[in-house]
Amino acid sequence: MDGRNRVIIEAASPEVDGGAFPAKRVTGDVVIAEADIFTDGHDLISAIVLHRHESQPEWTEVRMQALVNDRWRAQFPVEQLGFHLFTIEAWIDHFLTWHRDLKKRIDAKVTDDELDVQLRIGLEHIRAAAARANARDKRKLQGFIETLESGDTVKDKIADLWSQDLLDLMWRNAERRFATRYGHELQIEVDRPKAAYSTWYELFPRSTASQPGKHGTFLDVEAQLPRIARMGFDILYMPPIHPIGVNFRKGKNNKVAAEPGDVGSPWAIGGEEGGHKSVHPDLGTIDDFERLVNRAKELGIEVAMDIAFQASPDHPYVKEHPQWFLMRPDGTIQYAENPPKKYQDIYPFHFETDQWTELWDELRDVFAFWVRKGVRVFRVDNPHTKPLPFWEWCIRDLKKEWPDLIFLAEAFTRPKIMYRLAKAGYTQSYTYFAWRNTASELQEYFEEITKPPVSDFFRPNVWPNTPDILTEFLQYGGRPGFTMRFILAATLASSYGIYGPAFERYVHQAREHGSEEYLDSEKYEVKYWPPTDDDMTELIAAVNKIRRENLALQQNATLTFHPTDNEHILCYSKTAAENAVICVVNVDPHNAHAGWVDLDLEALRLEEGRPFQVHDLLSGARHTWHNGRNFVKLDPNVVPAHIFRIRRRVRTERDFEYFL
Amino acid sequence: MDGRNRVIIEAASPEVDGGAFPAKRVTGDVVIAEADIFTDGHDLISAIVLHRHESQPEWTEVRMQALVNDRWRAQFPVEQLGFHLFTIEAWIDHFLTWHRDLKKRIDAKVTDDELDVQLRIGLEHIRAAAARANARDKRKLQGFIETLESGDTVKDKIADLWSQDLLDLMWRNAERRFATRYGHELQIEVDRPKAAYSTWYELFPRSTASQPGKHGTFLDVEAQLPRIARMGFDILYMPPIHPIGVNFRKGKNNKVAAEPGDVGSPWAIGGEEGGHKSVHPDLGTIDDFERLVNRAKELGIEVAMDIAFQASPDHPYVKEHPQWFLMRPDGTIQYAENPPKKYQDIYPFHFETDQWTELWDELRDVFAFWVRKGVRVFRVDNPHTKPLPFWEWCIRDLKKEWPDLIFLAEAFTRPKIMYRLAKAGYTQSYTYFAWRNTASELQEYFEEITKPPVSDFFRPNVWPNTPDILTEFLQYGGRPGFTMRFILAATLASSYGIYGPAFERYVHQAREHGSEEYLDSEKYEVKYWPPTDDDMTELIAAVNKIRRENLALQQNATLTFHPTDNEHILCYSKTAAENAVICVVNVDPHNAHAGWVDLDLEALRLEEGRPFQVHDLLSGARHTWHNGRNFVKLDPNVVPAHIFRIRRRVRTERDFEYFL
Repeated sequence: MDGRNRVIIEAASPEVDGGAFPAKRVTGDVVIAEADIFTDGHDLISAIVLHRHESQPEWTEVRMQALVNDRWRAQFPVEQLGFHLFTIEAWIDHFLTWHRDLKKRIDAKVTDDELDVQLRIGLEHIRAAAARANARDKRKLQGFIETLESGDTVKDKIADLWSQDLLDLMWRNAERRFATRYGHELQIEVDRPKAAYSTWYELFPRSTASQPGKHGTFLDVEAQLPRIARMGFDILYMPPIHPIGVNFRKGKNNKVAAEPGDVGSPWAIGGEEGGHKSVHPDLGTIDDFERLVNRAKELGIEVAMDIAFQASPDHPYVKEHPQWFLMRPDGTIQYAENPPKKYQDIYPFHFETDQWTELWDELRDVFAFWVRKGVRVFRVDNPHTKPLPFWEWCIRDLKKEWPDLIFLAEAFTRPKIMYRLAKAGYTQSYTYFAWRNTASELQEYFEEITKPPVSDFFRPNVWPNTPDILTEFLQYGGRPGFTMRFILAATLASSYGIYGPAFERYVHQAREHGSEEYLDSEKYEVKYWPPTDDDMTELIAAVNKIRRENLALQQNATLTFHPTDNEHILCYSKTAAENAVICVVNVDPHNAHAGWVDLDLEALRLEEGRPFQVHDLLSGARHTWHNGRNFVKLDPNVVPAHIFRIRRRVRTERDFEYFL
Repeated sequence: MDGRNRVIIEAASPEVDGGAFPAKRVTGDVVIAEADIFTDGHDLISAIVLHRHESQPEWTEVRMQALVNDRWRAQFPVEQLGFHLFTIEAWIDHFLTWHRDLKKRIDAKVTDDELDVQLRIGLEHIRAAAARANARDKRKLQGFIETLESGDTVKDKIADLWSQDLLDLMWRNAERRFATRYGHELQIEVDRPKAAYSTWYELFPRSTASQPGKHGTFLDVEAQLPRIARMGFDILYMPPIHPIGVNFRKGKNNKVAAEPGDVGSPWAIGGEEGGHKSVHPDLGTIDDFERLVNRAKELGIEVAMDIAFQASPDHPYVKEHPQWFLMRPDGTIQYAENPPKKYQDIYPFHFETDQWTELWDELRDVFAFWVRKGVRVFRVDNPHTKPLPFWEWCIRDLKKEWPDLIFLAEAFTRPKIMYRLAKAGYTQSYTYFAWRNTASELQEYFEEITKPPVSDFFRPNVWPNTPDILTEFLQYGGRPGFTMRFILAATLASSYGIYGPAFERYVHQAREHGSEEYLDSEKYEVKYWPPTDDDMTELIAAVNKIRRENLALQQNATLTFHPTDNEHILCYSKTAAENAVICVVNVDPHNAHAGWVDLDLEALRLEEGRPFQVHDLLSGARHTWHNGRNFVKLDPNVVPAHIFRIRRRVRTERDFEYFL
């Protein structure tokens, strides 16, 4: 250590857990890097961010600007997938300090003798810079040196010193001998844009046949693709497509014993026909699957696989790798249980096995196998029941080879575990959204998950329903309940999904009172979803189109809540570049509500006292609002929400036609 | 790395900047150590804190308890000066998990076969523990094993398993093969209690002579000691006592040129007679100084030195070590300046000198010199104009040898620099208290500096005045202004100080309007402070006695503000063990104010609906309060504050006499 490195650099951002984990961004993002930078005394500081993609050997430097209270900032774009690194360097800039002080001295009319001494000090700085400079800069600096050495009058000598040229030359050739480097390099994990903005549709492929009683196939799924594309989804996620175990197979409605003909749960993976690298023969072949993947791609849809790391008693692993399971003293394999509940159709992996490295390698290979079949998006089942160190290794290892992979963590568990899974590498995460119903619950939760530090590592993907989750709100909220939960999901979060066939048809019957399980859930049986006009397709298509056409809805960082005077009305906005969207949602499915919303005009980059137009993208209506305080009324039986786009340049109502 | 270490440990506390700096405590404190600890799945975790004084080779283990939301806690006392280390270890406790699940299984009436398998699993755990145990534990565990192996009935076998003995034995001999250790060891810097609770009195020794016009001596200071002790101060701090430079000496009221007979500023250190290791001949000898230090000690007072690292042009360093100063191109030494201001009587050290290690060593030796004369407390002048890395090294190096040293940072500068000085090792810090006047300003500021993270490294020492700071509030607030600022300082902060002779006499005349400098400041002249009865001595003595007798006021961690309905009335409390003090202060020096205070009864550990007595320690009055909402009225011309002690066990007014 050189004790003359006097500058202190602290509290850099974005930084997750002191640099232990990367902050997440997507290509095209501009990273805003900040730090507290200061030193003793009155000297001026210069500071730079050094950044590079992991594949580049050389740092790129960006000069930092001082904000207030010793906070400094610079920004740089990230354009390449993988890890982008940055750190910070700062030094005392004796030339700049001298330059600032010279002005003050001249203003204070110091004596000529003193000025002469000061110019000699400046000359020393410039000479030293020239000695460090390349030939071109040296030539230019030489010019300044000559003026200082031979200028006729003090005035002449000084005039030259205010040139921006000199400042630039001195900046480029600054004395950085005692520069301080921040304690560590920080990582930005750069994903593709879909990591941040995605629209998911879930269906069971076996329930896609065109007639009742038939087991659907990948070909049947292909037939659904145009409709899914028309609705505006860009990810099609299917529960596990592998062979299903026979032993201890569950019956309809999760009955302990299956009856003949029962198809079992797709999550009881593995049978005679194979395990995690095979497909269920009734769905088709691996070739069929690849065809589906490619056909979907043509329509702008990616197929997401479900990866559930567990085995049915019939899984080939059980015979081939008994060491990967926990043996009980009676020689049987330990099945899944959460006493007193037993899941005898499921064997969990025994991650404390002596053969854990072999197990880890095989599980990683399951992902790799499907990546090679064209899959780039994985929804991982219950990742919180597998070791966190495994995920950290597995995801990082896979992304080394395929940095465009997206992993969605299906963990509904305690908050710190959900966050740690995200830090461990999950690209997106399921959330508690399904159980946040009131306006204040929604605001509190989304303020937590869309702002740093959480938003630096946790990307929410919100689902109003899943095959496991039919909330009380949907069970009893009627069609307005579905509509409002859908609009909230699609506008609060840049990534959302629906378990489609049930959601779009307003399916709301639970297996029993107090349960969130669907009655006759297709988790345990093949279903037939007849085509219908009486569903949410149109609204879904409209809202997804709004998402596509409004950049503001494709990110969460600018989410801002605005006060309303009715606790059932939630008002929030998002802005991005010139685009600004305000949503106002009645969250009570049973009653119409009216009230005043109080917009934070600054967050919307609107000027106080200047009218603006709001254009309801759902109804097409346009209103001119004259200030932040505005009246709204929303009847859930008509439509429970406004999605307003702000049209800024409106001057009077007559100008409406000029703006789209 | 072993991938089977499945437990995650995050966010330990106390932890300053991810462990980069120690958290501060004093001997006798109990450290509450916490962390987020969790794992995948449903297994139970066991966790311990490992801690040791740096001088001990072995860790002591303390079992942690789960709080809520995956937060765990343990506590341990710190009893020895220096650095105390701790870290955390946690593991999946398969025995505990099995034990918990066994109960659930029995409650769920599993089959006898299943129970038999489970008992065999438990037996394996106990056998493995016995194999790890020492002879004594092994014998005991053997007993449990025998029951399980040979018990007549399942019921017999199980009965034994619920014994606390077994749980204790299994805890002591737990399987910790896959334990996770927290990423780093955390440091607690343990100071002596005075670091946290101290009462400072500042005077200029040269102004202590018993008659006007005479230069005071250390002997004269001795004569003041009994009075200072009676007022209840335990630290006597004197500005620099070294020879004062002659060249460019400042005159009275900081005039640029001294007149004959002007004594100069004690901070222009160094003259013919010596530098930082010498005393001003007019004050006496080093022997006199040591005598003063010892005499003070007998009265319970420590003498604090002022260390100001700068030199007058006449300092011996200038000749002996010209390389420690910055030379200008004209061959003169760079004096202190903040252009256009010049301080030609002061040469700052040039910390970027090639001889920086020699300079550091010498400055460290200045402290060491005075430590060897008996000084243990240093007030450091303007530490923010010397490099932070220097302080980090210097203070740590000195405390290695003398861990009882106390360093007070006199830095009035930007907040991040003040905090960094505290992290760098300063024991106490001056604050912005002098300029926080309104109730809301005071509350906001003290909430920041008395709660973690700040309070883990920053110990406030609050001063209503200093020789440099005569605030507008004191200039225009009259005597009530002095009284209220004094009471606020002494009760809001466990450490405070006054620049005594001027404060206790209500000296309030500034050099000029808009200045915080005292008129005829004794920074530049010898003053005579005639004895008087018309001063604050009695109030000061009373309040310092209250501080001594109420543990609650000797710390800041429990400081709690309570709402009032009058913005001029500030109400706050402190509690420690059984002691609880409530202060109510009118912060308007010009008007009487009345209002309702709304006590947070929980913070005071008072029961709702149960009357309690408040005993005003200033006036002696006692009141019974029946709930949290109470009326107060404070006239600053009488006394601007209540300092209530809560007497808990009062039942009726008639019981008053039983409680002191």
